[in-house]
Amino acid sequence: MTIKDIVRPSKQLIKALEAQVSSATAAGELSRLGIRDPFMKGPVAFTPGVKVVGPAVTLQFMPKREDVYGEQEYTDPEKQLHRHVLYAAAAGDIVVVDARGDLSSGCFGNMMLTYFKGKGGLGVVIDGCIRDFPICKTLGLGLWLRGVTPNFHTQTNIFPMAVNVPIACGGVLVLPGDIIIADDDGVAVVPAKLAPELVKRASAHADWEDFSREKLEQGGDLRRYYPISEEAWPEYQEWRKAHKLPPPTPDDHMLARWKGAKAKK
Amino acid sequence: MTIKDIVRPSKQLIKALEAQVSSATAAGELSRLGIRDPFMKGPVAFTPGVKVVGPAVTLQFMPKREDVYGEQEYTDPEKQLHRHVLYAAAAGDIVVVDARGDLSSGCFGNMMLTYFKGKGGLGVVIDGCIRDFPICKTLGLGLWLRGVTPNFHTQTNIFPMAVNVPIACGGVLVLPGDIIIADDDGVAVVPAKLAPELVKRASAHADWEDFSREKLEQGGDLRRYYPISEEAWPEYQEWRKAHKLPPPTPDDHMLARWKGAKAKK
Amino acid sequence: MTIKDIVRPSKQLIKALEAQVSSATAAGELSRLGIRDPFMKGPVAFTPGVKVVGPAVTLQFMPKREDVYGEQEYTDPEKQLHRHVLYAAAAGDIVVVDARGDLSSGCFGNMMLTYFKGKGGLGVVIDGCIRDFPICKTLGLGLWLRGVTPNFHTQTNIFPMAVNVPIACGGVLVLPGDIIIADDDGVAVVPAKLAPELVKRASAHADWEDFSREKLEQGGDLRRYYPISEEAWPEYQEWRKAHKLPPPTPDDHMLARWKGAKAKK
Amino acid sequence: MTIKDIVRPSKQLIKALEAQVSSATAAGELSRLGIRDPFMKGPVAFTPGVKVVGPAVTLQFMPKREDVYGEQEYTDPEKQLHRHVLYAAAAGDIVVVDARGDLSSGCFGNMMLTYFKGKGGLGVVIDGCIRDFPICKTLGLGLWLRGVTPNFHTQTNIFPMAVNVPIACGGVLVLPGDIIIADDDGVAVVPAKLAPELVKRASAHADWEDFSREKLEQGGDLRRYYPISEEAWPEYQEWRKAHKLPPPTPDDHMLARWKGAKAKK
Amino acid sequence: MTIKDIVRPSKQLIKALEAQVSSATAAGELSRLGIRDPFMKGPVAFTPGVKVVGPAVTLQFMPKREDVYGEQEYTDPEKQLHRHVLYAAAAGDIVVVDARGDLSSGCFGNMMLTYFKGKGGLGVVIDGCIRDFPICKTLGLGLWLRGVTPNFHTQTNIFPMAVNVPIACGGVLVLPGDIIIADDDGVAVVPAKLAPELVKRASAHADWEDFSREKLEQGGDLRRYYPISEEAWPEYQEWRKAHKLPPPTPDDHMLARWKGAKAKK
Amino acid sequence: MTIKDIVRPSKQLIKALEAQVSSATAAGELSRLGIRDPFMKGPVAFTPGVKVVGPAVTLQFMPKREDVYGEQEYTDPEKQLHRHVLYAAAAGDIVVVDARGDLSSGCFGNMMLTYFKGKGGLGVVIDGCIRDFPICKTLGLGLWLRGVTPNFHTQTNIFPMAVNVPIACGGVLVLPGDIIIADDDGVAVVPAKLAPELVKRASAHADWEDFSREKLEQGGDLRRYYPISEEAWPEYQEWRKAHKLPPPTPDDHMLARWKGAKAKK
Repeated sequence: MTIKDIVRPSKQLIKALEAQVSSATAAGELSRLGIRDPFMKGPVAFTPGVKVVGPAVTLQFMPKREDVYGEQEYTDPEKQLHRHVLYAAAAGDIVVVDARGDLSSGCFGNMMLTYFKGKGGLGVVIDGCIRDFPICKTLGLGLWLRGVTPNFHTQTNIFPMAVNVPIACGGVLVLPGDIIIADDDGVAVVPAKLAPELVKRASAHADWEDFSREKLEQGGDLRRYYPISEEAWPEYQEWRKAHKLPPPTPDDHMLARWKGAKAKK
Repeated sequence: MTIKDIVRPSKQLIKALEAQVSSATAAGELSRLGIRDPFMKGPVAFTPGVKVVGPAVTLQFMPKREDVYGEQEYTDPEKQLHRHVLYAAAAGDIVVVDARGDLSSGCFGNMMLTYFKGKGGLGVVIDGCIRDFPICKTLGLGLWLRGVTPNFHTQTNIFPMAVNVPIACGGVLVLPGDIIIADDDGVAVVPAKLAPELVKRASAHADWEDFSREKLEQGGDLRRYYPISEEAWPEYQEWRKAHKLPPPTPDDHMLARWKGAKAKK
Repeated sequence: MTIKDIVRPSKQLIKALEAQVSSATAAGELSRLGIRDPFMKGPVAFTPGVKVVGPAVTLQFMPKREDVYGEQEYTDPEKQLHRHVLYAAAAGDIVVVDARGDLSSGCFGNMMLTYFKGKGGLGVVIDGCIRDFPICKTLGLGLWLRGVTPNFHTQTNIFPMAVNVPIACGGVLVLPGDIIIADDDGVAVVPAKLAPELVKRASAHADWEDFSREKLEQGGDLRRYYPISEEAWPEYQEWRKAHKLPPPTPDDHMLARWKGAKAKK
Repeated sequence: MTIKDIVRPSKQLIKALEAQVSSATAAGELSRLGIRDPFMKGPVAFTPGVKVVGPAVTLQFMPKREDVYGEQEYTDPEKQLHRHVLYAAAAGDIVVVDARGDLSSGCFGNMMLTYFKGKGGLGVVIDGCIRDFPICKTLGLGLWLRGVTPNFHTQTNIFPMAVNVPIACGGVLVLPGDIIIADDDGVAVVPAKLAPELVKRASAHADWEDFSREKLEQGGDLRRYYPISEEAWPEYQEWRKAHKLPPPTPDDHMLARWKGAKAKK
Repeated sequence: MTIKDIVRPSKQLIKALEAQVSSATAAGELSRLGIRDPFMKGPVAFTPGVKVVGPAVTLQFMPKREDVYGEQEYTDPEKQLHRHVLYAAAAGDIVVVDARGDLSSGCFGNMMLTYFKGKGGLGVVIDGCIRDFPICKTLGLGLWLRGVTPNFHTQTNIFPMAVNVPIACGGVLVLPGDIIIADDDGVAVVPAKLAPELVKRASAHADWEDFSREKLEQGGDLRRYYPISEEAWPEYQEWRKAHKLPPPTPDDHMLARWKGAKAKK
Repeated sequence: MTIKDIVRPSKQLIKALEAQVSSATAAGELSRLGIRDPFMKGPVAFTPGVKVVGPAVTLQFMPKREDVYGEQEYTDPEKQLHRHVLYAAAAGDIVVVDARGDLSSGCFGNMMLTYFKGKGGLGVVIDGCIRDFPICKTLGLGLWLRGVTPNFHTQTNIFPMAVNVPIACGGVLVLPGDIIIADDDGVAVVPAKLAPELVKRASAHADWEDFSREKLEQGGDLRRYYPISEEAWPEYQEWRKAHKLPPPTPDDHMLARWKGAKAKK
């Protein structure tokens, strides 16, 4: 059994994604970059408020077949592949598991996840369940799951068959080394090579959105403030001045929209 | 695009429903008034502990078709109908969305909902999802949803097609202007014209239920205290006296039941 | 209508299960005792953090048929069987309901559950819903449910037909008197006669797991500490000494594994 | 193990239902008699063109539990309850099985069904599967099933637990002795005591429907011919004369409708 | 109640689609024209071997609500909207029904469909059921359905609410007047304005596919014959000569592919 | 792209399975050999009456991701992996496809399947769909599918990613080279090394079952004839004599059962 290691992104890139790119920002921008749907259907946040960003190590479960997954796996723990994905994981990694949507197998229990946390692991994304949730929710890992169960990983229908191979999880293809952005909105899968572009685009937005949100909270008109209109621009300039920020410049997208709006009148 | 406004109930009626009618009381009484099932299956409380009562403005999504929902909608925000349902909403309103159960479209994001809150909106009921949940859950709106997602409203399968038309949401027909009562039990749809009757009936019940609940908490017998029996009546009279409440009168329904109970002995 | 009483386990057994056997421990050991899957799929914890252990009294709902469940049940509360399962329940019991997965019937409401709590009831497990959740979640009962609804128990599709008969709940057969162990992982059904064996086995494990967990938290190697290896044994002996615990003895299972591990080298 | 026999309807009643009452006629009239939904969702016709009418003998499967359904059942065929429902069946009976919607258990195979056919059995209705379908479809029995499978009855998740008890099948309550009407539209469950009324009502309809169908086939106007209008009545009288049938009399329902139609003009 | 008529395509266009465009050809070409998924999930062929092409008249069902769909609809047939969609239908039309996937409502019965056939109707597409299938399957209409049932159209959960409005059926948006192409592969929805282009593209393909299919049947190599390779072209020329067909000309798409294939060598 | 070939069983073994082992016999005996559930849930017979037996070549689809499955695949057919599984197939093979249950992708169309048939292919098993069913059903291949669609293989959600790798299909693990037995009961997966044992066991059964079936058809008692009882043995001896068959010998299993039956009396 040889398990390939993954290629990991730079710490700097991860930090930037962590700071500026929510799963929602990622999904929206990936859509504009040609990835139709990077969102996993199924796994939801079981640790509300937690956000994690990191590369994916992957584990594939398959339907159990007694001539393939035999007694040996029960007696020799080192034959159990769900251990090996944790061996392959490094600090900052996220374990992503294709558990086939199974709701009666707990892919990991508290000892496995304690070990993963001890190594510096960030979180676990499973199209299925874990067990020992009363303890696991206290470990400080992020958990995105379909459910929880008292059953162990091979108790009923599935068994772990491969580590660090391409998998499907929640209807999305995950390649080992893809970057996972997971928060309360759920899990977005970011192809490693597109991640730097996400950071770039996210910072462009953030600029005027704080101003707009403030105005909307006060009962401002959506048409005026989101996206920001030509009419609101001077007000925005004032706002920046008041906040000791440098004067803003409208980007091309804005200018085109303002021109279009004028043409309609 | 002309969007009809809805007819809104009186403030007083809303206040009375708010104070006395839970979704459970509404569902039970509506059943007795001939409405078999006013409960939406699908949307559940994402803001636990919150209760809202108000008239419904409605938004209908349809399966996306590229020749109908085209590029224009992407470039001209004012073509996007999910904005228009918010324009049509007034303070005290609840937005109800037929999102066809879709789990990969976030019908509204944080800027939209901030605007809605800024206008005095109360809550959102969706047979589908919102996005930006990490922020949206803090806005002070009530949210009844099937889920959350990082995807935007037209990223995958659906698009908004009509505002303030009759819709189906969670298997219940909702007419614009129907009254929504939503709490931790979920969402009940109240036909506007039946709402005053609900208030009337709810107050009749509330009278002796506090007494009964207190007795049951102390280990009292269900047969004696719920519904209240003839045997427990004197005890109830005492209890009211002790609480400085006016003496009670058994209603016709009670009297009939007591008579029936005697006949069986 | 005669309702059979159940046979209840000893207080002592319940206390031991309560202290030492989580639903996860129960499921794992039952699997090794030949029960393939004791876990209910469907009902999940609606009262996070609560654990209950107790014997099951059972209630069976059936699809409503108007010639069988008629008007009488509406007018004479004592004909309603969901009341009778509560009459049959004693302090320490858990009510388990086959509600057929129905999501629009609230099998119990706040008055019923207040009565059950008043009697010393521990919790309710339903392959369906309750109503009045805003109140019910505060009663101090454990609740494992598929959902909540404002509808009452016979408002739509089902009605209660039998008490203390064998039922299916969440895909598991439950006999009246089976022992329920329910916590945040969900609900495990323990055949009464296997319960003492569970206690015995659970205590055997607990011995070295605290040591191992501590090591894993500190970044220790899974291969060394879980399950505990021969190499880690002296370290474990030291740890026990430091904690003023008597010296450990490796069990047969461990010895066999250590021997196997050596043979591989 | 004592199994109750069922009460069977008269041959004459069965013959009349067979001749005049389709499952569609039964469902419609039962609705008017207060039975909201007598139709089984799930089992569909696997023997197209076949219609059967007869009393139900029932078999209840439950989720398999290894301490209840043990080895004995495998080795002693007479412990297997799916045999006993066939022993309890008489010529003209229909076996109705609550198989819990399971798609990987073949409740009966070809030897069982050959025996049932040999006894004069009419058909089988299962909220689940049979096996040996290549042979079973040739036996001359009517089969309404959710599917077929090569697996035997207790190979995976369920086992037979009771015979001639009330069951749920396809979301409908079936009492032993209820009358089953099954054809290409599916399966309707008729409470035994309502069956005679169905025969009576069905014959009232049949009278003018042949005439109307003929006219509609020729392009006649629905408003004129279905239900039959006052304007078409003379034409109908002629048609009956031409077919050597006695002159018709409009029933009360018709007269009321004609009066209503006139009032609208 | 005013019901809009639809705009119907020319007879000639329908004839050409009928002759040359299967639902599979339509789906493939629509994909290339930017319509991602014109295929209805849910309704399948209940009349195998039948193909129909025609414009859609539409009927929308909604969840039943007793204060909206009242007694009048039961007593005055002309209030029932499922009749009106048939009044609005002309010879050559196809009725498309949004029945919300409901499996216990028979949207039409044999009298309705006999009338529709009598008018020259071609077929019915329903995201739900019909009733009286034993008769309806013999009428000569094409039927694409999710199922069949003995229940009538408003017996359980839904009622017809609008005619010739935009609907969703099987996850596809259908506008009144869209062209339906339905055969054993299922139902494809063709926006009216794209239909002529489909005819044009379909004929381009058909040219060499007969030759290729013949070769593949004889064990020919897929790489050589499908799509047709430069190497097979002389053989194709011979084949046409032998069949007395004019000499072929490779189209631009072919030439580009041949060039690409050469470049790879 | 290198694709591994599979190891194929002997012609003789295939012939024996073809003649003596139905999918039902296979499933039952595999269960007794320790394989709990070899039956695929999902794919059903679309070519009724056809049975195929042969080794599996496998194709794995994955959720489509635009950065992985790009434009090239659309323009260069030789990049499309669903072609390569057919290149890898030999006469007598069965193509098994993990299409992830997708109902809007037609994994193969008529040209692909015509080529496969031309090579001597036997059948196709897909946890999903094909397209061009009007033609494909006439090709003489066996087809086990979840459905049919007009859409092509990568039109919506999935794309082919690997050939001759282990896959899951219908909830069963399939290794390349496993033997498929498919008939009207569905599809059973037989691990290659267990196939000879199946042949051996099947012939043991067939011996007396013809006699028993004949008796049951004539109304014989199940207890007497199935499994065959000691009382019926002389009758069976006579029957064989009459059919000019050699005298029978009861096997060990029978003798044990007869002994058990006697003990009970």
